[in-house]
Amino acid sequence: MASHSKKRSTKAGLPPGTLVHIGKKKNVTPRIILLDYDDNGVRESEITVADLADGTRFAHGIKWISVHGLGDTHMMEQIGACFDLHPLVLEDIFNTEQRSKLEDYGNYLYVVLKTFSYEYNETGERIDSDQISLVLGKNFVLSFLEADSTQFGSVRERLHAGKGQIRKLGADFLMYSLIDSIVDSYFVILEQLDEKTEALETELVARPQPSTLHSIYRLKREGVFLRKSLWPLREVISSLQRGDSPLFTRNTLLYLRDVYDHIIHIIESVESLRDLTAGMLDIYVSSVSYRISIVMKVLTVITTIFMPLTLIAGIYGMNFKHLPGLDSELGFFVVLGIMATISVGMLALFRWKKWL
Amino acid sequence: MASHSKKRSTKAGLPPGTLVHIGKKKNVTPRIILLDYDDNGVRESEITVADLADGTRFAHGIKWISVHGLGDTHMMEQIGACFDLHPLVLEDIFNTEQRSKLEDYGNYLYVVLKTFSYEYNETGERIDSDQISLVLGKNFVLSFLEADSTQFGSVRERLHAGKGQIRKLGADFLMYSLIDSIVDSYFVILEQLDEKTEALETELVARPQPSTLHSIYRLKREGVFLRKSLWPLREVISSLQRGDSPLFTRNTLLYLRDVYDHIIHIIESVESLRDLTAGMLDIYVSSVSYRISIVMKVLTVITTIFMPLTLIAGIYGMNFKHLPGLDSELGFFVVLGIMATISVGMLALFRWKKWL
Amino acid sequence: MASHSKKRSTKAGLPPGTLVHIGKKKNVTPRIILLDYDDNGVRESEITVADLADGTRFAHGIKWISVHGLGDTHMMEQIGACFDLHPLVLEDIFNTEQRSKLEDYGNYLYVVLKTFSYEYNETGERIDSDQISLVLGKNFVLSFLEADSTQFGSVRERLHAGKGQIRKLGADFLMYSLIDSIVDSYFVILEQLDEKTEALETELVARPQPSTLHSIYRLKREGVFLRKSLWPLREVISSLQRGDSPLFTRNTLLYLRDVYDHIIHIIESVESLRDLTAGMLDIYVSSVSYRISIVMKVLTVITTIFMPLTLIAGIYGMNFKHLPGLDSELGFFVVLGIMATISVGMLALFRWKKWL
Amino acid sequence: MASHSKKRSTKAGLPPGTLVHIGKKKNVTPRIILLDYDDNGVRESEITVADLADGTRFAHGIKWISVHGLGDTHMMEQIGACFDLHPLVLEDIFNTEQRSKLEDYGNYLYVVLKTFSYEYNETGERIDSDQISLVLGKNFVLSFLEADSTQFGSVRERLHAGKGQIRKLGADFLMYSLIDSIVDSYFVILEQLDEKTEALETELVARPQPSTLHSIYRLKREGVFLRKSLWPLREVISSLQRGDSPLFTRNTLLYLRDVYDHIIHIIESVESLRDLTAGMLDIYVSSVSYRISIVMKVLTVITTIFMPLTLIAGIYGMNFKHLPGLDSELGFFVVLGIMATISVGMLALFRWKKWL
Amino acid sequence: MASHSKKRSTKAGLPPGTLVHIGKKKNVTPRIILLDYDDNGVRESEITVADLADGTRFAHGIKWISVHGLGDTHMMEQIGACFDLHPLVLEDIFNTEQRSKLEDYGNYLYVVLKTFSYEYNETGERIDSDQISLVLGKNFVLSFLEADSTQFGSVRERLHAGKGQIRKLGADFLMYSLIDSIVDSYFVILEQLDEKTEALETELVARPQPSTLHSIYRLKREGVFLRKSLWPLREVISSLQRGDSPLFTRNTLLYLRDVYDHIIHIIESVESLRDLTAGMLDIYVSSVSYRISIVMKVLTVITTIFMPLTLIAGIYGMNFKHLPGLDSELGFFVVLGIMATISVGMLALFRWKKWL
Repeated sequence: MASHSKKRSTKAGLPPGTLVHIGKKKNVTPRIILLDYDDNGVRESEITVADLADGTRFAHGIKWISVHGLGDTHMMEQIGACFDLHPLVLEDIFNTEQRSKLEDYGNYLYVVLKTFSYEYNETGERIDSDQISLVLGKNFVLSFLEADSTQFGSVRERLHAGKGQIRKLGADFLMYSLIDSIVDSYFVILEQLDEKTEALETELVARPQPSTLHSIYRLKREGVFLRKSLWPLREVISSLQRGDSPLFTRNTLLYLRDVYDHIIHIIESVESLRDLTAGMLDIYVSSVSYRISIVMKVLTVITTIFMPLTLIAGIYGMNFKHLPGLDSELGFFVVLGIMATISVGMLALFRWKKWL
Repeated sequence: MASHSKKRSTKAGLPPGTLVHIGKKKNVTPRIILLDYDDNGVRESEITVADLADGTRFAHGIKWISVHGLGDTHMMEQIGACFDLHPLVLEDIFNTEQRSKLEDYGNYLYVVLKTFSYEYNETGERIDSDQISLVLGKNFVLSFLEADSTQFGSVRERLHAGKGQIRKLGADFLMYSLIDSIVDSYFVILEQLDEKTEALETELVARPQPSTLHSIYRLKREGVFLRKSLWPLREVISSLQRGDSPLFTRNTLLYLRDVYDHIIHIIESVESLRDLTAGMLDIYVSSVSYRISIVMKVLTVITTIFMPLTLIAGIYGMNFKHLPGLDSELGFFVVLGIMATISVGMLALFRWKKWL
Repeated sequence: MASHSKKRSTKAGLPPGTLVHIGKKKNVTPRIILLDYDDNGVRESEITVADLADGTRFAHGIKWISVHGLGDTHMMEQIGACFDLHPLVLEDIFNTEQRSKLEDYGNYLYVVLKTFSYEYNETGERIDSDQISLVLGKNFVLSFLEADSTQFGSVRERLHAGKGQIRKLGADFLMYSLIDSIVDSYFVILEQLDEKTEALETELVARPQPSTLHSIYRLKREGVFLRKSLWPLREVISSLQRGDSPLFTRNTLLYLRDVYDHIIHIIESVESLRDLTAGMLDIYVSSVSYRISIVMKVLTVITTIFMPLTLIAGIYGMNFKHLPGLDSELGFFVVLGIMATISVGMLALFRWKKWL
Repeated sequence: MASHSKKRSTKAGLPPGTLVHIGKKKNVTPRIILLDYDDNGVRESEITVADLADGTRFAHGIKWISVHGLGDTHMMEQIGACFDLHPLVLEDIFNTEQRSKLEDYGNYLYVVLKTFSYEYNETGERIDSDQISLVLGKNFVLSFLEADSTQFGSVRERLHAGKGQIRKLGADFLMYSLIDSIVDSYFVILEQLDEKTEALETELVARPQPSTLHSIYRLKREGVFLRKSLWPLREVISSLQRGDSPLFTRNTLLYLRDVYDHIIHIIESVESLRDLTAGMLDIYVSSVSYRISIVMKVLTVITTIFMPLTLIAGIYGMNFKHLPGLDSELGFFVVLGIMATISVGMLALFRWKKWL
Repeated sequence: MASHSKKRSTKAGLPPGTLVHIGKKKNVTPRIILLDYDDNGVRESEITVADLADGTRFAHGIKWISVHGLGDTHMMEQIGACFDLHPLVLEDIFNTEQRSKLEDYGNYLYVVLKTFSYEYNETGERIDSDQISLVLGKNFVLSFLEADSTQFGSVRERLHAGKGQIRKLGADFLMYSLIDSIVDSYFVILEQLDEKTEALETELVARPQPSTLHSIYRLKREGVFLRKSLWPLREVISSLQRGDSPLFTRNTLLYLRDVYDHIIHIIESVESLRDLTAGMLDIYVSSVSYRISIVMKVLTVITTIFMPLTLIAGIYGMNFKHLPGLDSELGFFVVLGIMATISVGMLALFRWKKWL
């Protein structure tokens, strides 16, 4: 995580509202995609900032302006001017290391959300988060993505297809659809976590290894990261579904209540992950201890059986002139017999003590 | 659990209100059972969706329509139309991976509850949950079960028998009776958990084994699962018994307060399970450590007794020409005597040190 | 605990208000004891249910009807009818596996409390709980005990003696006195727990054994059980002392505030027990580990000293013709000298390394 | 703690308001010290109960009556009568095993506080708590101390010296000064705890021993005890500084807010002690485990080096007639050379494996 | 920490408002720097206390008086008189061992904040905290720093440069800028903690050592210290951004909301540190246990292979006259062959058991 927030402290001392990109910078040329629609039709086109100011460009009532890539601060300032956004909103869009949050600026709402994906590099996989900023106004929605992702593909398709109520309802329903599509994407991560958990549990029972331990720790770390990221989201959605803002109609609030239930479900699953990883760590430690006790027993059994035999051999190896039985023809076999008897007796004793 | 929620992410991107069955699908042909009653009588019959729309079918005042099996989305849409249910309610009935919840749609209440049962498969037993959706309207109750279960058998019997107040009171009392029958069924699971806990405690004291460890973890996991499932239920019942909805009469609220007490009692029992499994894990680890220390002592005693004896035998096995006592007739026995003395001394020392 | 709640699930499916005894049934013939008093005098007598209905039986203003033993459901129904109790109250009196609770039925208050005592059986001692139900009306108090206990002996004595204000004040003060006598009895259990804790701490320092471990777990379990039982009590007394019910006069509320302080004090003591048992478990585990490390050192020291000596003896036991010193008269003593030097050097090394 | 609360249960069954001394009884003859003052002057004198009733004894406006020692129940009853104290207040003053609390009796406030000090006995030191009861009336403050302590010495000096505002302001400012002097005394204990913590941390790094473990547990126990004692205090001061009682002027409330900050600071320090002792326990356990692993390695290295050498010596000690090299003059040195090579190779291997 | 709060208890007994420096005293000669500005210009000058009282010294509307170094109590009293500060404010400025806090004195706000920095000494590094006191009045801000730090350098530069809104807005915006610059400085510490965490995680996987353990504990301790220090800050900023004080304009409140988000982000990061250090400790312990089990296996394998071989050698070393094979020419090689077979068999067995 250190590599992420590194640039955060570089901003200390700058006046508020300064547009500085914080977090990992994705190298994407920013694109602006406009989608305007009403019940009668939809039009999608890639536009420039200049087009935004030109009102005659809009054929339909509700506008969805989607910005892909955050590289161009100048362009952002123009967009900000077009929609009368507060300087802090622009600053926050560029700061991709933020918590999810909801800010009500009266005539528009500013919402910061996170999407998660597994990213694979040389040291293994880790959960990476992208930030999505959404602005909801009276008849427009602005969405700002860090990269040219397909996050909102399904919403675009539904708009084009005109399926369901989406084209009949206002910008607030579009806003809901975007948030819902983000929250739905969390289930993918959750299912991956569940699979990992099950795989680890199986590994723990079958054959725990040091790598199992590190996998448990990584799982724990991912849980910590997700919990930290999802808790503020809970507040955001909770506050939206309470209907504090007049921008949302009562009908849309019912749908937001549903999203809220999903987010609670997700958070509770992540919370139980915490308990489960703690339990798995305990089991790992116990298994290692148990294996030590098994090895110890083997060692003790071996030592206990061979030490007396070796002593007997040593005794008959002493160079005393007068040692009973040395000259007897059966002496050797008698001693071997004694040795065998001792071994068998020991084994019986250990079996009786349930050590074998 | 992974296998359960797998299908959840498949739904991402679909418009809200799309009826997709989420969770394990039970292969049951859906049946609709109508039970209408008032103080004078009861009638129970299996009906089709078409019958529902036909008002003349109802002989008595209060209707309980019970749907067993969720396979048929078309049928569900018709039922939704009959009782004017919101599309989100229908969507939620099909999503069997939800949290318990209560939603107030003004003229009806939608309640999602869970039932639990132990399910046995090749990898051992696990707690499985079924979802039950209940809708309470002015004079009707709808219940949607995943399968053709006997969950509400006792309520049906009481309706037929006319025992108690159930036929004298309204649909809200029927709703209470259904919820009460579900909450009562939790005590069965709770008692099984208690029995397992006691069995494990006995096993821990008598003879802890690796399988004990895995049993503790499974118990912990079941506790985590139940806690996660029961907490939202607490909110549901709490909100019901506060009487926020006018659909419940004051008389029924007294009964709901009783159900609320039961659910709190159940949650507290599950919460203490958490403490107990943590304690059991600690004891298991300690027991293994203790056994290691016992084995270590045996090993050390054996080594400490035999090593000096073997050394003495080795010394008298050296091939020096001039070795005192080799020629003496008693030499051998003197050495054996020394060995015996050392052994006895060692044993006395260990006994005095409380190692034996 | 399993044996206690076993019968709970047997009740599933019965209509609410059905009187079924849940929990361990004490074999006592129910007795009803009436105590009526005012400032002028007291009268105590054992009565039948029939006497209750007969109003002329009461010589004084305030009535305390105490039922010992819950065996007779028919009798209870008659008592319920006499004092106009809700069916749920009667059901709850019989269900002795409940949480402490307070229910306000308008013209009377229903309070469920618990008393605790140590019970000894073949598997050791355990905390057992009895349930006491209290009903406070305008000028009467009903108390229902599971068995013929002496719980309220001191209150009866004070009533007879007329000491203090008890006879001058109303039924609410009698109610307070009964609750106070129950809460006071908790201090006995608390002191026993404190003594056990101290004994265990001493044992841990002096000579930890596997039985110590099981004692700690038992203590923990008792703490879990008491915490679970006492938390709802806190709510009950808190709600009483807030004065929500008009049945309590302001004067009595001052006394209830005092009881509330006691119950908080008791709960906090039980809570710290949790921290202490956790700490004791840690110490036990550490002690065992430490003892293992001591045994390991002894073993290593023995092995390290004897192995080189045995090797030297072995070398001079080899059958080579040409082995330097074999023929020398001093050879044997030189080798013994070398052995002694090695031993002393090793011992010095270990002492310097602080292993001995 | 057991020894403290022992007498608590002896009180069960007595009517409320009975004056019974609970807790360790300090053998002090009770003394009453009167300090009356206003802006013009101060007078301090030791008085009897009879003097209290005699109003002409007071030369100045504000009275501070300080009772040292709680032995005399009769005297207390007279003081109670003088100032019209509720019987429960008198009872609570004698019960020195209480939680800190604030009770508002309308025309006076009753506050119970605790002071802490280390007490040394044969089994080591422990934190002991004394109880101080304060009563604030319109123009008087009563303070009840268990023993003849110097707790309020600094306040008396300030009154005599007339420094600061203390003589210019009312009884509420005197009350604040007394509370402030108690809270200030907690910093002494806190600093002792901090020193112990640092000492233990140093010991843990340098040379952990079983006694370290018991010191950590004692520290933990002291933290548990202090937390339990200080939490109710937080509520008391919080409630005072909110200004619920008209006895406090706005000016004094500012000062109480300051005391509240101090108490929060103290509680937070005690809370972090909990985390630190938990961490120390973990380190202790880890250190012991680590030392075991070191000892194990030494043992294994010794065994692994000497066992093959001993075997070789044993092989050349066999009594076969035809054993290659026995007759060779160099045979012995070749075998010694092989032994040396094996030893060096083993040592190199272990060094390469980082075991040495 | 002990060394810090040591002087706290020395203050016990002094009247409130006494100016005593608490905490480590930095040896700095106090300097007063005045910065007055409005939209038209800025002037910065070092002044004396006497200048403060002389109103004609101020050229511009908004004054920022910055005091560097707290050594001079007399000077502070004069400043206090100039701006009519409460004695408790002056006392708190000198007590540098306080929690962050906000106090509203009606016509001015008093805010205590903390800055953190790593300090290196002979026993290693530790987090050190400095205290900054801020007073916001109608058109002035007072800042009190313990030493002559560069904390507010960037704000001064922005004032001089006139960049952004800072010179156009009131004293409340200056106050916000100062708080923001402090909160921004926390990200530096946070990033250092993140780097340490990553370094420790790498060390844990690669080669855990006792020093790793102590680093984890130090990290934990730093987390505990920061959490304790940052929680009260959260309350301070939360209370500021709620806009309880009329000194803040609505515009500035938007900016404070942003600072509040930052502080929450920081606290959440510190909180997850707690989980991570706990997880790291567990891994360390497990790694050590695992290494023990590896060493144990090696030891057991060595012992198990060599013991039977040594016994065989011992048997053929016995001095029996009649020992089969001694005279055979191949006898020696047969025995060696048996030894080799046993070794290979043992190795195969261990490999099959996955011990090697």
